[in-house]
Amino acid sequence: MPQIIECVPNFSEGRDRAVIEKLVAAVKSVPDVRFLHQTSDEDHNRTVLTFAGEPSPVVEAAFRAIKVASERIDLSRHEGQHPFVGAADVVPLVPIQNVTMQACAEYAHVLGRRVASDLNLPVFLYEEAFTRADCRNLADIRKGGYEGLNQRMQADPPFTPDYGPNQLGPAGAVVIGARDFLIAFNIFLQTDDVTIAKAIASRIRERDGGLPKVKALGLLVDGRAQVSMNLTDYRVTPPHVVVDAVTRLAHEIGVEVAESELIGLMPEAAILAAAQQALGLPQLLPDRILENALRSDTDS
Amino acid sequence: MPQIIECVPNFSEGRDRAVIEKLVAAVKSVPDVRFLHQTSDEDHNRTVLTFAGEPSPVVEAAFRAIKVASERIDLSRHEGQHPFVGAADVVPLVPIQNVTMQACAEYAHVLGRRVASDLNLPVFLYEEAFTRADCRNLADIRKGGYEGLNQRMQADPPFTPDYGPNQLGPAGAVVIGARDFLIAFNIFLQTDDVTIAKAIASRIRERDGGLPKVKALGLLVDGRAQVSMNLTDYRVTPPHVVVDAVTRLAHEIGVEVAESELIGLMPEAAILAAAQQALGLPQLLPDRILENALRSDTDS
Repeated sequence: MPQIIECVPNFSEGRDRAVIEKLVAAVKSVPDVRFLHQTSDEDHNRTVLTFAGEPSPVVEAAFRAIKVASERIDLSRHEGQHPFVGAADVVPLVPIQNVTMQACAEYAHVLGRRVASDLNLPVFLYEEAFTRADCRNLADIRKGGYEGLNQRMQADPPFTPDYGPNQLGPAGAVVIGARDFLIAFNIFLQTDDVTIAKAIASRIRERDGGLPKVKALGLLVDGRAQVSMNLTDYRVTPPHVVVDAVTRLAHEIGVEVAESELIGLMPEAAILAAAQQALGLPQLLPDRILENALRSDTDS
Repeated sequence: MPQIIECVPNFSEGRDRAVIEKLVAAVKSVPDVRFLHQTSDEDHNRTVLTFAGEPSPVVEAAFRAIKVASERIDLSRHEGQHPFVGAADVVPLVPIQNVTMQACAEYAHVLGRRVASDLNLPVFLYEEAFTRADCRNLADIRKGGYEGLNQRMQADPPFTPDYGPNQLGPAGAVVIGARDFLIAFNIFLQTDDVTIAKAIASRIRERDGGLPKVKALGLLVDGRAQVSMNLTDYRVTPPHVVVDAVTRLAHEIGVEVAESELIGLMPEAAILAAAQQALGLPQLLPDRILENALRSDTDS
Protein backbone atom coordinates (compact mmCIF):
# COMPACT_ATOMS: atom_id res chain seq x y z
CA MET A 1 0.00 0.00 0.00
CA PRO A 2 1.34 3.44 -0.91
CA GLN A 3 2.06 6.08 1.70
CA ILE A 4 -0.73 8.64 1.83
CA ILE A 5 -0.79 11.94 3.66
CA GLU A 6 -3.51 14.54 3.62
CA CYS A 7 -3.02 18.30 3.60
CA VAL A 8 -5.79 20.68 4.73
CA PRO A 9 -4.47 24.21 4.28
CA ASN A 10 -6.57 27.14 5.46
CA PHE A 11 -6.23 30.35 3.44
CA SER A 12 -7.37 33.80 4.53
CA GLU A 13 -9.54 34.39 1.48
CA GLY A 14 -13.13 33.20 1.10
CA ARG A 15 -14.58 35.90 -1.15
CA ASP A 16 -12.43 36.64 -4.20
CA ARG A 17 -13.27 33.84 -6.66
CA ALA A 18 -10.25 34.58 -8.86
CA VAL A 19 -7.83 34.09 -5.96
CA ILE A 20 -9.60 30.96 -4.74
CA GLU A 21 -9.46 29.46 -8.23
CA LYS A 22 -5.74 30.12 -8.38
CA LEU A 23 -5.21 28.37 -5.04
CA VAL A 24 -7.12 25.34 -6.30
CA ALA A 25 -5.28 25.38 -9.61
CA ALA A 26 -1.93 25.44 -7.79
CA VAL A 27 -2.83 22.25 -5.93
CA LYS A 28 -4.21 20.55 -9.05
CA SER A 29 -1.10 21.50 -11.05
CA VAL A 30 0.85 18.75 -9.27
CA PRO A 31 0.41 15.31 -10.87
CA ASP A 32 -0.58 12.48 -8.53
CA VAL A 33 -2.24 14.76 -5.99
CA ARG A 34 -5.88 13.92 -5.37
CA PHE A 35 -7.96 17.02 -4.83
CA LEU A 36 -10.66 15.97 -2.32
CA HIS A 37 -12.65 18.96 -1.16
CA GLN A 38 -12.95 22.72 -1.09
CA THR A 39 -14.89 24.96 1.28
CA SER A 40 -14.96 28.73 0.93
CA ASP A 41 -16.83 30.85 3.44
CA GLU A 42 -17.50 34.53 2.86
CA ASP A 43 -18.11 35.41 6.52
CA HIS A 44 -15.08 33.55 7.82
CA ASN A 45 -13.37 34.93 4.67
CA ARG A 46 -11.52 31.67 4.54
CA THR A 47 -10.95 28.80 2.14
CA VAL A 48 -10.09 25.29 3.24
CA LEU A 49 -8.70 22.88 0.65
CA THR A 50 -8.33 19.17 1.21
CA PHE A 51 -6.01 17.06 -0.88
CA ALA A 52 -4.05 13.84 -0.46
CA GLY A 53 -1.50 11.61 -2.05
CA GLU A 54 2.03 10.39 -1.54
CA PRO A 55 4.10 12.73 0.62
CA SER A 56 6.34 14.38 -2.00
CA PRO A 57 3.63 15.55 -4.39
CA VAL A 58 1.43 16.65 -1.46
CA VAL A 59 4.27 18.78 -0.04
CA GLU A 60 4.90 20.22 -3.52
CA ALA A 61 1.20 21.09 -3.94
CA ALA A 62 1.12 22.70 -0.50
CA PHE A 63 4.16 24.81 -1.38
CA ARG A 64 2.62 25.97 -4.67
CA ALA A 65 -0.64 26.96 -2.96
CA ILE A 66 1.23 28.82 -0.19
CA LYS A 67 3.16 30.68 -2.89
CA VAL A 68 -0.08 31.76 -4.62
CA ALA A 69 -1.56 32.84 -1.28
CA SER A 70 1.52 34.88 -0.36
CA GLU A 71 1.39 36.68 -3.71
CA ARG A 72 -2.37 37.23 -3.95
CA ILE A 73 -3.70 37.73 -0.41
CA ASP A 74 -2.95 41.02 1.33
CA LEU A 75 -3.71 40.74 5.02
CA SER A 76 -3.61 44.49 5.53
CA ARG A 77 -6.97 44.57 3.73
CA HIS A 78 -8.39 41.37 5.26
CA GLU A 79 -11.67 41.31 7.14
CA GLY A 80 -13.29 38.17 8.46
CA GLN A 81 -14.75 36.39 11.46
CA HIS A 82 -12.04 33.81 11.84
CA PRO A 83 -8.73 34.45 13.63
CA PHE A 84 -5.72 34.42 11.29
CA VAL A 85 -2.01 35.24 11.15
CA GLY A 86 -1.20 34.43 7.52
CA ALA A 87 -2.39 34.51 3.92
CA ALA A 88 -1.70 30.78 3.98
CA ASP A 89 -2.72 30.64 7.61
CA VAL A 90 -2.44 27.04 8.76
CA VAL A 91 -1.06 24.10 6.78
CA PRO A 92 -1.43 20.77 8.59
CA LEU A 93 -0.12 17.48 7.23
CA VAL A 94 -2.08 14.43 8.34
CA PRO A 95 -0.95 10.79 8.23
CA ILE A 96 -3.62 8.73 6.46
CA GLN A 97 -2.09 5.45 5.33
CA ASN A 98 1.23 3.73 5.89
CA VAL A 99 2.90 6.91 7.24
CA THR A 100 3.90 7.72 10.80
CA MET A 101 3.16 10.98 12.56
CA GLN A 102 6.90 11.43 12.96
CA ALA A 103 7.34 11.25 9.17
CA CYS A 104 4.59 13.86 8.72
CA ALA A 105 6.34 16.11 11.23
CA GLU A 106 9.52 15.80 9.17
CA TYR A 107 7.64 16.69 5.97
CA ALA A 108 6.30 19.75 7.81
CA HIS A 109 9.89 20.83 8.50
CA VAL A 110 10.87 20.24 4.86
CA LEU A 111 7.93 22.36 3.71
CA GLY A 112 8.62 25.03 6.33
CA ARG A 113 12.25 25.43 5.35
CA ARG A 114 11.30 25.82 1.68
CA VAL A 115 8.57 28.37 2.45
CA ALA A 116 11.06 30.38 4.50
CA SER A 117 13.88 30.25 1.96
CA ASP A 118 11.93 30.58 -1.32
CA LEU A 119 9.10 32.88 -0.18
CA ASN A 120 10.88 34.69 2.67
CA LEU A 121 7.96 34.13 5.06
CA PRO A 122 8.16 33.44 8.81
CA VAL A 123 7.15 29.82 9.52
CA PHE A 124 5.96 28.49 12.88
CA LEU A 125 5.80 24.71 13.36
CA TYR A 126 2.90 23.46 15.45
CA GLU A 127 1.38 20.31 16.98
CA GLU A 128 3.46 17.21 16.28
CA ALA A 129 6.00 19.25 14.31
CA PHE A 130 6.57 21.64 17.24
CA THR A 131 10.08 22.52 18.37
CA ARG A 132 9.08 24.59 21.41
CA ALA A 133 6.30 24.04 23.91
CA ASP A 134 4.80 27.49 23.27
CA CYS A 135 4.22 26.59 19.61
CA ARG A 136 2.59 23.25 20.06
CA ASN A 137 -0.92 24.65 20.33
CA LEU A 138 -2.13 26.54 17.27
CA ALA A 139 -4.18 28.89 19.46
CA ASP A 140 -1.01 29.99 21.29
CA ILE A 141 0.64 31.00 18.02
CA ARG A 142 -2.46 32.72 16.73
CA LYS A 143 -3.26 34.55 19.98
CA GLY A 144 -4.29 38.12 19.14
CA GLY A 145 -4.31 37.31 15.43
CA TYR A 146 -1.98 39.04 12.99
CA GLU A 147 -1.54 42.11 15.20
CA GLY A 148 -1.01 40.09 18.34
CA LEU A 149 1.62 37.90 16.70
CA ASN A 150 3.30 40.95 15.19
CA GLN A 151 3.64 42.55 18.64
CA ARG A 152 4.95 39.37 20.23
CA MET A 153 7.50 38.95 17.43
CA GLN A 154 8.79 42.48 18.18
CA ALA A 155 8.69 42.01 21.98
CA ASP A 156 11.72 41.52 24.23
CA PRO A 157 12.40 38.62 24.24
CA PRO A 158 10.85 38.14 20.81
CA PHE A 159 8.55 35.26 19.87
CA THR A 160 10.61 34.00 16.93
CA PRO A 161 9.54 31.74 14.05
CA ASP A 162 11.13 28.32 13.48
CA TYR A 163 12.22 29.37 10.01
CA GLY A 164 12.32 32.63 8.06
CA PRO A 165 12.45 36.31 8.98
CA ASN A 166 11.32 37.61 12.37
CA GLN A 167 8.95 40.04 10.69
CA LEU A 168 5.40 39.99 9.33
CA GLY A 169 4.66 41.39 5.87
CA PRO A 170 1.31 41.61 4.09
CA ALA A 171 1.26 37.79 3.71
CA GLY A 172 1.84 37.29 7.44
CA ALA A 173 3.25 34.03 8.79
CA VAL A 174 2.57 30.41 7.84
CA VAL A 175 1.82 27.91 10.59
CA ILE A 176 2.81 24.47 9.35
CA GLY A 177 2.46 21.25 11.28
CA ALA A 178 1.57 17.62 11.57
CA ARG A 179 -1.52 16.42 13.37
CA ASP A 180 -4.07 13.66 13.51
CA PHE A 181 -7.09 13.77 11.27
CA LEU A 182 -9.66 16.17 12.68
CA ILE A 183 -13.28 16.85 11.87
CA ALA A 184 -14.12 20.53 11.36
CA PHE A 185 -17.75 20.77 12.34
CA ASN A 186 -19.92 23.81 13.01
CA ILE A 187 -23.39 24.15 14.48
CA PHE A 188 -25.56 27.19 13.74
CA LEU A 189 -27.93 28.45 16.40
CA GLN A 190 -31.28 30.11 15.74
CA THR A 191 -30.10 33.41 17.20
CA ASP A 192 -27.89 36.31 16.20
CA ASP A 193 -26.59 36.59 19.78
CA VAL A 194 -22.95 35.53 19.52
CA THR A 195 -22.58 35.54 23.31
CA ILE A 196 -24.79 32.41 23.38
CA ALA A 197 -22.49 30.64 20.92
CA LYS A 198 -19.49 31.70 22.97
CA ALA A 199 -21.14 30.44 26.17
CA ILE A 200 -21.92 27.06 24.61
CA ALA A 201 -18.41 26.85 23.12
CA SER A 202 -16.85 27.37 26.52
CA ARG A 203 -19.08 24.66 28.04
CA ILE A 204 -18.31 22.20 25.27
CA ARG A 205 -14.55 22.52 24.80
CA GLU A 206 -11.97 20.40 26.55
CA ARG A 207 -9.85 23.40 27.57
CA ASP A 208 -12.62 24.61 29.88
CA GLY A 209 -13.53 21.19 31.23
CA GLY A 210 -15.97 20.13 28.50
CA LEU A 211 -15.85 17.21 26.10
CA PRO A 212 -12.46 15.57 25.52
CA LYS A 213 -10.77 16.24 22.16
CA VAL A 214 -13.12 19.11 21.33
CA LYS A 215 -11.99 22.64 20.51
CA ALA A 216 -14.74 25.22 20.14
CA LEU A 217 -15.25 28.93 19.43
CA GLY A 218 -18.39 31.03 19.31
CA LEU A 219 -18.63 33.12 16.13
CA LEU A 220 -21.16 35.27 14.29
CA VAL A 221 -21.43 33.88 10.76
CA ASP A 222 -23.94 34.96 8.13
CA GLY A 223 -25.88 36.87 10.78
CA ARG A 224 -26.24 33.79 12.97
CA ALA A 225 -24.45 32.59 16.08
CA GLN A 226 -22.30 29.55 15.33
CA VAL A 227 -20.44 27.09 17.55
CA SER A 228 -17.35 26.39 15.42
CA MET A 229 -15.51 23.22 16.41
CA ASN A 230 -12.56 21.00 15.73
CA LEU A 231 -13.00 17.41 16.86
CA THR A 232 -9.42 16.30 17.22
CA ASP A 233 -10.14 12.64 17.93
CA TYR A 234 -13.53 11.48 16.65
CA ARG A 235 -12.94 8.09 18.28
CA VAL A 236 -13.04 9.82 21.68
CA THR A 237 -15.79 12.34 20.99
CA PRO A 238 -17.62 11.66 17.74
CA PRO A 239 -19.64 14.40 16.05
CA HIS A 240 -23.08 13.06 16.98
CA VAL A 241 -22.13 13.33 20.68
CA VAL A 242 -21.17 16.96 20.11
CA VAL A 243 -24.49 17.64 18.36
CA ASP A 244 -26.40 16.15 21.30
CA ALA A 245 -24.40 18.18 23.82
CA VAL A 246 -24.72 21.48 21.94
CA THR A 247 -28.45 20.87 21.44
CA ARG A 248 -28.92 20.20 25.14
CA LEU A 249 -26.95 23.29 26.19
CA ALA A 250 -28.82 25.44 23.67
CA HIS A 251 -32.15 24.21 25.04
CA GLU A 252 -31.01 25.04 28.57
CA ILE A 253 -30.46 28.60 27.38
CA GLY A 254 -33.75 28.56 25.51
CA VAL A 255 -32.32 28.59 21.98
CA GLU A 256 -32.90 26.12 19.13
CA VAL A 257 -30.08 24.74 17.01
CA ALA A 258 -30.32 25.23 13.26
CA GLU A 259 -28.33 23.09 10.86
CA SER A 260 -24.77 21.81 11.15
CA GLU A 261 -21.92 22.29 8.71
CA LEU A 262 -19.13 19.88 7.86
CA ILE A 263 -15.90 21.36 6.51
CA GLY A 264 -13.92 18.91 4.40
CA LEU A 265 -14.33 15.22 5.00
CA MET A 266 -15.42 12.84 7.73
CA PRO A 267 -14.06 9.33 8.30
CA GLU A 268 -16.50 6.52 7.63
CA ALA A 269 -16.28 5.44 11.27
CA ALA A 270 -17.69 8.79 12.46
CA ILE A 271 -20.57 8.52 9.99
CA LEU A 272 -21.27 4.95 11.03
CA ALA A 273 -21.25 5.99 14.70
CA ALA A 274 -23.83 8.70 13.98
CA ALA A 275 -26.01 6.32 11.96
CA GLN A 276 -25.67 3.64 14.64
CA GLN A 277 -27.08 6.05 17.21
CA ALA A 278 -29.85 7.34 14.94
CA LEU A 279 -30.91 3.78 14.10
CA GLY A 280 -30.60 2.42 17.65
CA LEU A 281 -28.20 -0.31 16.54
CA PRO A 282 -25.83 -1.78 19.15
CA GLN A 283 -23.11 -1.86 16.48
CA LEU A 284 -22.72 -0.81 12.86
CA LEU A 285 -19.48 -1.83 11.20
CA PRO A 286 -18.24 -0.97 7.69
CA ASP A 287 -18.88 -4.52 6.45
CA ARG A 288 -22.64 -3.93 6.82
CA ILE A 289 -22.54 -1.27 4.08
CA LEU A 290 -23.63 -2.94 0.85
CA GLU A 291 -21.16 -1.03 -1.30
CA ASN A 292 -18.25 -1.93 0.97
CA ALA A 293 -19.21 -5.60 1.02
CA LEU A 294 -19.38 -5.71 -2.76
CA ARG A 295 -16.02 -3.96 -3.04
CA SER A 296 -14.25 -6.06 -0.46
CA ASP A 297 -11.50 -8.29 -1.76
CA THR A 298 -11.76 -10.80 1.04
CA ASP A 299 -14.57 -13.29 1.19
CA SER A 300 -15.35 -14.23 4.74
CA MET B 1 -18.81 -3.25 -15.28
CA PRO B 2 -19.83 -6.82 -14.58
CA GLN B 3 -23.42 -7.82 -13.96
CA ILE B 4 -24.04 -8.33 -10.25
CA ILE B 5 -27.07 -9.80 -8.56
CA GLU B 6 -27.57 -10.45 -4.90
CA CYS B 7 -29.32 -13.45 -3.36
CA VAL B 8 -30.74 -13.32 0.18
CA PRO B 9 -32.19 -16.76 0.91
CA ASN B 10 -34.05 -17.34 4.19
CA PHE B 11 -33.77 -20.84 5.64
CA SER B 12 -35.99 -22.30 8.37
CA GLU B 13 -33.09 -23.21 10.63
CA GLY B 14 -31.45 -20.85 13.11
CA ARG B 15 -30.36 -23.25 15.86
CA ASP B 16 -28.51 -26.29 14.53
CA ARG B 17 -24.96 -25.04 13.90
CA ALA B 18 -24.05 -28.09 11.81
CA VAL B 19 -26.88 -27.48 9.36
CA ILE B 20 -26.18 -23.73 9.20
CA GLU B 21 -22.53 -24.42 8.45
CA LYS B 22 -23.51 -26.74 5.61
CA LEU B 23 -25.75 -24.05 4.12
CA VAL B 24 -22.91 -21.54 4.24
CA ALA B 25 -20.45 -24.07 2.83
CA ALA B 26 -22.80 -24.80 -0.08
CA VAL B 27 -22.80 -21.12 -1.05
CA LYS B 28 -19.06 -20.77 -0.62
CA SER B 29 -18.42 -23.89 -2.70
CA VAL B 30 -19.18 -21.92 -5.86
CA PRO B 31 -16.20 -19.98 -7.21
CA ASP B 32 -16.75 -16.28 -7.94
CA VAL B 33 -19.59 -15.95 -5.45
CA ARG B 34 -18.95 -13.30 -2.81
CA PHE B 35 -20.34 -14.33 0.56
CA LEU B 36 -21.45 -11.07 2.21
CA HIS B 37 -23.32 -11.76 5.41
CA GLN B 38 -24.98 -14.33 7.64
CA THR B 39 -27.61 -13.88 10.34
CA SER B 40 -28.94 -16.79 12.37
CA ASP B 41 -31.65 -16.24 14.94
CA GLU B 42 -32.63 -18.90 17.43
CA ASP B 43 -36.05 -17.48 18.25
CA HIS B 44 -37.03 -16.90 14.65
CA ASN B 45 -35.27 -20.24 14.04
CA ARG B 46 -34.13 -18.78 10.79
CA THR B 47 -30.91 -18.12 8.92
CA VAL B 48 -30.50 -15.42 6.32
CA LEU B 49 -27.51 -15.59 4.01
CA THR B 50 -26.45 -12.77 1.73
CA PHE B 51 -24.22 -13.32 -1.26
CA ALA B 52 -23.60 -11.69 -4.61
CA GLY B 53 -21.79 -12.03 -7.89
CA GLU B 54 -22.49 -12.54 -11.55
CA PRO B 55 -25.88 -14.17 -12.20
CA SER B 56 -24.82 -17.72 -13.17
CA PRO B 57 -22.65 -18.48 -10.12
CA VAL B 58 -25.18 -16.83 -7.79
CA VAL B 59 -27.99 -19.02 -9.18
CA GLU B 60 -25.73 -22.07 -8.82
CA ALA B 61 -24.94 -21.18 -5.18
CA ALA B 62 -28.63 -20.63 -4.44
CA PHE B 63 -29.45 -24.04 -5.88
CA ARG B 64 -26.76 -25.79 -3.82
CA ALA B 65 -27.97 -24.15 -0.60
CA ILE B 66 -31.61 -25.01 -1.37
CA LYS B 67 -30.52 -28.61 -1.92
CA VAL B 68 -28.77 -28.73 1.48
CA ALA B 69 -31.81 -27.18 3.16
CA SER B 70 -34.19 -29.68 1.54
CA GLU B 71 -32.04 -32.58 2.73
CA ARG B 72 -31.23 -31.32 6.25
CA ILE B 73 -34.23 -29.33 7.48
CA ASP B 74 -37.37 -31.24 8.48
CA LEU B 75 -40.30 -28.84 8.80
CA SER B 76 -42.42 -31.41 10.63
CA ARG B 77 -40.12 -30.78 13.62
CA HIS B 78 -39.73 -27.01 13.10
CA GLU B 79 -40.60 -24.50 15.77
CA GLY B 80 -40.02 -20.79 15.47
CA GLN B 81 -41.53 -17.35 15.65
CA HIS B 82 -41.32 -16.52 12.00
CA PRO B 83 -43.90 -17.65 9.41
CA PHE B 84 -42.51 -20.19 6.95
CA VAL B 85 -43.56 -22.62 4.22
CA GLY B 86 -40.24 -24.19 3.29
CA ALA B 87 -36.86 -25.45 4.49
CA ALA B 88 -35.43 -23.02 1.97
CA ASP B 89 -38.29 -20.66 2.60
CA VAL B 90 -37.77 -17.58 0.44
CA VAL B 91 -35.07 -17.06 -2.17
CA PRO B 92 -35.08 -13.55 -3.66
CA LEU B 93 -32.76 -12.43 -6.42
CA VAL B 94 -31.95 -8.72 -6.39
CA PRO B 95 -30.50 -6.63 -9.22
CA ILE B 96 -27.45 -4.74 -7.93
CA GLN B 97 -25.37 -3.62 -10.88
CA ASN B 98 -25.83 -3.64 -14.64
CA VAL B 99 -28.77 -6.10 -14.49
CA THR B 100 -32.46 -5.41 -15.10
CA MET B 101 -35.25 -6.58 -12.84
CA GLN B 102 -36.64 -8.48 -15.83
CA ALA B 103 -33.37 -10.42 -16.12
CA CYS B 104 -33.51 -11.24 -12.40
CA ALA B 105 -37.07 -12.51 -12.85
CA GLU B 106 -35.85 -14.79 -15.64
CA TYR B 107 -33.04 -16.12 -13.41
CA ALA B 108 -35.69 -16.81 -10.77
CA HIS B 109 -37.57 -18.96 -13.29
CA VAL B 110 -34.36 -20.77 -14.29
CA LEU B 111 -33.63 -21.52 -10.62
CA GLY B 112 -37.25 -22.51 -9.94
CA ARG B 113 -37.38 -25.00 -12.80
CA ARG B 114 -34.16 -26.64 -11.61
CA VAL B 115 -35.33 -26.85 -7.98
CA ALA B 116 -38.56 -28.48 -9.17
CA SER B 117 -36.93 -30.95 -11.54
CA ASP B 118 -33.79 -31.88 -9.57
CA LEU B 119 -35.14 -31.70 -6.00
CA ASN B 120 -38.82 -32.44 -6.71
CA LEU B 121 -40.00 -29.49 -4.60
CA PRO B 122 -42.99 -27.23 -5.29
CA VAL B 123 -41.80 -23.75 -6.34
CA PHE B 124 -43.86 -20.57 -6.14
CA LEU B 125 -42.59 -17.51 -7.99
CA TYR B 126 -43.21 -14.18 -6.28
CA GLU B 127 -42.83 -10.42 -6.69
CA GLU B 128 -41.30 -9.46 -10.02
CA ALA B 129 -41.05 -13.13 -11.07
CA PHE B 130 -44.79 -13.70 -10.45
CA THR B 131 -46.94 -15.45 -13.04
CA ARG B 132 -50.27 -15.01 -11.25
CA ALA B 133 -51.59 -12.05 -9.26
CA ASP B 134 -52.23 -14.20 -6.16
CA CYS B 135 -48.50 -15.06 -5.97
CA ARG B 136 -47.07 -11.61 -6.35
CA ASN B 137 -47.12 -10.83 -2.64
CA LEU B 138 -45.04 -13.16 -0.47
CA ALA B 139 -47.52 -12.84 2.40
CA ASP B 140 -50.29 -14.24 0.18
CA ILE B 141 -48.27 -17.38 -0.56
CA ARG B 142 -47.20 -17.81 3.04
CA LYS B 143 -50.66 -17.16 4.55
CA GLY B 144 -51.27 -19.70 7.32
CA GLY B 145 -47.69 -20.93 7.08
CA TYR B 146 -46.85 -24.50 6.09
CA GLU B 147 -50.22 -25.89 7.21
CA GLY B 148 -52.19 -23.10 5.57
CA LEU B 149 -50.37 -23.53 2.27
CA ASN B 150 -50.79 -27.31 2.47
CA GLN B 151 -54.55 -26.95 2.85
CA ARG B 152 -54.83 -24.45 0.01
CA MET B 153 -52.79 -26.72 -2.26
CA GLN B 154 -55.27 -29.55 -1.56
CA ALA B 155 -58.36 -27.31 -1.88
CA ASP B 156 -60.74 -27.29 -4.83
CA PRO B 157 -59.65 -25.50 -6.92
CA PRO B 158 -56.09 -26.06 -5.69
CA PHE B 159 -53.51 -23.31 -5.17
CA THR B 160 -50.86 -24.81 -7.47
CA PRO B 161 -47.13 -24.07 -7.59
CA ASP B 162 -45.48 -22.59 -10.68
CA TYR B 163 -43.15 -25.59 -10.92
CA GLY B 164 -42.92 -28.97 -9.22
CA PRO B 165 -45.37 -31.28 -7.49
CA ASN B 166 -48.64 -30.03 -5.99
CA GLN B 167 -47.73 -31.53 -2.64
CA LEU B 168 -45.75 -30.48 0.44
CA GLY B 169 -43.18 -32.84 1.93
CA PRO B 170 -40.98 -32.32 5.00
CA ALA B 171 -38.95 -29.68 3.10
CA GLY B 172 -42.09 -27.76 2.15
CA ALA B 173 -42.14 -25.37 -0.78
CA VAL B 174 -39.59 -22.86 -2.05
CA VAL B 175 -40.70 -19.34 -2.82
CA ILE B 176 -38.33 -17.86 -5.40
CA GLY B 177 -38.51 -14.41 -6.85
CA ALA B 178 -36.98 -11.18 -7.98
CA ARG B 179 -37.31 -7.97 -6.06
CA ASP B 180 -35.65 -4.67 -5.32
CA PHE B 181 -33.07 -4.42 -2.57
CA LEU B 182 -34.79 -4.27 0.81
CA ILE B 183 -33.58 -3.49 4.28
CA ALA B 184 -34.59 -6.05 6.89
CA PHE B 185 -34.74 -4.07 10.09
CA ASN B 186 -36.21 -4.98 13.49
CA ILE B 187 -36.85 -2.89 16.58
CA PHE B 188 -37.09 -4.49 20.02
CA LEU B 189 -39.44 -2.99 22.60
CA GLN B 190 -38.86 -3.00 26.35
CA THR B 191 -41.86 -5.23 26.94
CA ASP B 192 -42.80 -8.88 26.56
CA ASP B 193 -46.30 -7.90 25.43
CA VAL B 194 -46.41 -8.94 21.78
CA THR B 195 -49.76 -7.22 21.30
CA ILE B 196 -47.95 -3.88 21.60
CA ALA B 197 -45.52 -4.86 18.84
CA LYS B 198 -48.45 -5.99 16.69
CA ALA B 199 -50.30 -2.72 17.34
CA ILE B 200 -47.25 -0.65 16.36
CA ALA B 201 -46.63 -2.85 13.30
CA SER B 202 -50.16 -2.25 12.07
CA ARG B 203 -49.78 1.51 12.53
CA ILE B 204 -46.44 1.56 10.75
CA ARG B 205 -47.02 -0.63 7.69
CA GLU B 206 -48.16 0.63 4.32
CA ARG B 207 -50.86 -2.02 3.98
CA ASP B 208 -52.77 -0.49 6.89
CA GLY B 209 -52.21 3.11 5.87
CA GLY B 210 -48.82 3.64 7.54
CA LEU B 211 -45.47 4.55 6.05
CA PRO B 212 -45.00 3.90 2.32
CA LYS B 213 -42.76 0.95 1.36
CA VAL B 214 -42.80 -0.49 4.88
CA LYS B 215 -43.91 -4.02 5.75
CA ALA B 216 -44.15 -4.84 9.45
CA LEU B 217 -45.07 -7.67 11.80
CA GLY B 218 -45.24 -7.83 15.59
CA LEU B 219 -43.35 -10.84 16.99
CA LEU B 220 -42.16 -12.17 20.34
CA VAL B 221 -38.40 -12.76 20.03
CA ASP B 222 -36.06 -13.70 22.84
CA GLY B 223 -38.79 -12.90 25.35
CA ARG B 224 -39.23 -9.39 24.00
CA ALA B 225 -41.77 -7.80 21.71
CA GLN B 226 -40.26 -6.93 18.36
CA VAL B 227 -41.48 -4.88 15.41
CA SER B 228 -40.00 -6.85 12.48
CA MET B 229 -39.85 -4.88 9.25
CA ASN B 230 -38.93 -4.94 5.61
CA LEU B 231 -38.21 -1.53 4.11
CA THR B 232 -38.82 -2.20 0.45
CA ASP B 233 -37.63 1.19 -0.83
CA TYR B 234 -35.25 2.96 1.54
CA ARG B 235 -35.26 5.99 -0.76
CA VAL B 236 -38.96 6.48 0.05
CA THR B 237 -38.88 5.54 3.74
CA PRO B 238 -35.35 5.27 5.12
CA PRO B 239 -34.68 3.34 8.33
CA HIS B 240 -34.11 6.37 10.56
CA VAL B 241 -37.63 7.58 9.72
CA VAL B 242 -38.98 4.19 10.77
CA VAL B 243 -37.04 4.33 14.04
CA ASP B 244 -38.48 7.77 14.79
CA ALA B 245 -42.02 6.62 13.99
CA VAL B 246 -41.81 3.41 16.04
CA THR B 247 -40.27 5.32 18.96
CA ARG B 248 -43.05 7.89 18.85
CA LEU B 249 -45.80 5.23 18.70
CA ALA B 250 -44.17 3.25 21.51
CA HIS B 251 -44.04 6.37 23.69
CA GLU B 252 -47.74 7.02 22.99
CA ILE B 253 -48.43 3.54 24.37
CA GLY B 254 -46.05 4.15 27.28
CA VAL B 255 -43.33 1.70 26.21
CA GLU B 256 -39.63 2.36 25.55
CA VAL B 257 -37.81 1.03 22.52
CA ALA B 258 -34.74 -1.10 23.16
CA GLU B 259 -32.14 -1.66 20.44
CA SER B 260 -32.62 -2.23 16.72
CA GLU B 261 -31.34 -5.10 14.61
CA LEU B 262 -30.15 -5.02 11.01
CA ILE B 263 -30.37 -8.28 9.05
CA GLY B 264 -27.90 -8.42 6.20
CA LEU B 265 -26.68 -5.22 4.64
CA MET B 266 -27.72 -1.62 4.23
CA PRO B 267 -26.95 0.62 1.27
CA GLU B 268 -24.56 3.48 1.97
CA ALA B 269 -27.28 6.01 1.08
CA ALA B 270 -29.49 4.77 3.95
CA ILE B 271 -26.59 5.05 6.40
CA LEU B 272 -25.70 8.51 5.16
CA ALA B 273 -29.34 9.59 5.51
CA ALA B 274 -29.38 8.41 9.13
CA ALA B 275 -26.06 10.12 9.90
CA GLN B 276 -27.23 13.30 8.16
CA GLN B 277 -30.23 13.45 10.47
CA ALA B 278 -28.24 12.63 13.61
CA LEU B 279 -25.66 15.29 12.76
CA GLY B 280 -28.16 17.95 11.68
CA LEU B 281 -26.48 18.33 8.29
CA PRO B 282 -28.58 19.67 5.39
CA GLN B 283 -26.88 17.14 3.12
CA LEU B 284 -24.33 14.35 3.45
CA LEU B 285 -23.16 12.80 0.20
CA PRO B 286 -20.80 9.83 -0.30
CA ASP B 287 -17.97 12.10 -1.47
CA ARG B 288 -17.72 13.55 2.06
CA ILE B 289 -16.60 10.18 3.42
CA LEU B 290 -12.81 10.27 3.67
CA GLU B 291 -12.39 6.64 2.57
CA ASN B 292 -14.57 7.16 -0.49
CA ALA B 293 -12.74 10.32 -1.49
CA LEU B 294 -9.38 8.54 -1.25
CA ARG B 295 -10.69 5.62 -3.28
CA SER B 296 -12.33 7.73 -5.97
CA ASP B 297 -10.78 7.56 -9.42
CA THR B 298 -12.00 10.95 -10.49
CA ASP B 299 -10.35 14.11 -9.31
CA SER B 300 -12.80 16.97 -9.15
